[in-house]
Amino acid sequence: MRNQRLRVFVAERDWDQFHSPKNLAMALSVEASELVELFQWLSEAQSAAPDEQLRRRAAEELADILWFLVRIADRLDIDLLAAAESKMVQNAEKYPAERVRGQSRKYDEY
Amino acid sequence: MRNQRLRVFVAERDWDQFHSPKNLAMALSVEASELVELFQWLSEAQSAAPDEQLRRRAAEELADILWFLVRIADRLDIDLLAAAESKMVQNAEKYPAERVRGQSRKYDEY
Amino acid sequence: MRNQRLRVFVAERDWDQFHSPKNLAMALSVEASELVELFQWLSEAQSAAPDEQLRRRAAEELADILWFLVRIADRLDIDLLAAAESKMVQNAEKYPAERVRGQSRKYDEY
Amino acid sequence: MRNQRLRVFVAERDWDQFHSPKNLAMALSVEASELVELFQWLSEAQSAAPDEQLRRRAAEELADILWFLVRIADRLDIDLLAAAESKMVQNAEKYPAERVRGQSRKYDEY
Repeated sequence: MRNQRLRVFVAERDWDQFHSPKNLAMALSVEASELVELFQWLSEAQSAAPDEQLRRRAAEELADILWFLVRIADRLDIDLLAAAESKMVQNAEKYPAERVRGQSRKYDEY
Repeated sequence: MRNQRLRVFVAERDWDQFHSPKNLAMALSVEASELVELFQWLSEAQSAAPDEQLRRRAAEELADILWFLVRIADRLDIDLLAAAESKMVQNAEKYPAERVRGQSRKYDEY
Repeated sequence: MRNQRLRVFVAERDWDQFHSPKNLAMALSVEASELVELFQWLSEAQSAAPDEQLRRRAAEELADILWFLVRIADRLDIDLLAAAESKMVQNAEKYPAERVRGQSRKYDEY
Repeated sequence: MRNQRLRVFVAERDWDQFHSPKNLAMALSVEASELVELFQWLSEAQSAAPDEQLRRRAAEELADILWFLVRIADRLDIDLLAAAESKMVQNAEKYPAERVRGQSRKYDEY
């Protein structure tokens, strides 16, 4: 996903020096928490019926997370879409539909 | 990014009942922390020179994060790529290259 | 809170080299996410009526968080209880009871 | 740690309705990320030599974390100090000094 463009953005600002995978992982987790913060005092039902302002703020946080995700994958030379594809196959095996239906436990608790 | 396929995966397991945006945001942040955990005791230099096992584990965590990201965007009816595009434009304005070069402060500290 | 004892534990293992405030903050956030993970697929009501196993696991995560909290405070030479006291006073001013009663917005949204 | 005083603070604001363990765990993890954010672009050495402003901001985040920690423990009827004591004993067994000295792997990797 547009690694190239993000590389240019970072290089123009001379930010590569800050972008170790360690630091990028921290930054991604901080963005994830900013998403959590939007929902923390809402009920689940409220979170599923966001008003326009909440949707817009959530969209910004999702975008931040995606950019850091793409950036880390680039720095670690990981093909993000191939990894996602592979994980989907793994998850289908770990969580067979007939066994886990309607349950939310982790696979090692089944 | 393949919302449709993920929807089928979730529907087959009857997991929609658990997938409020609130819960999905929590799950995404937990996956982000699993990524952080891989790097927490490493130096920045070590994190930038991962061995094959570390790269593989990082790839799995990145995949988990991406799936939850896609899932939340779908539940909130957000176009993830459009949001990323829009955020990139915003960031280019907030962080003009000539002003922030080589610095890591937040934009409101400039 | 028993900084001294924790210092000995860390020194005996020669772990000071890993315990920069940066790394300790990462570790604390990872433990916080392990707490979140216990509750992520539960309803709020379920989280408020934990069975014995859940309470025990939550207690372990709270303990991990507390130890890292004490450890960071020690490394940064911060008096944790004084900081908590001071924050309580600040919060009482930021969130006057008569103004915020029954509402959960952040103080800058009032 | 002063559960009683925190209970009064919350009751005066009628905030108990928001304080399920699930929500409090989210809030605690968000505060932990605000701590991480202070250090994310700093080197480990920089994080260990904070200026006065950074120390003050870190102290505020540590205080926020402690308050949510005390609050969750209270809601789950967990004795936080007893849990911390018990975890210390467990950790001494899981990580025998002579075996883990100078190493940072997780106990299940030894």
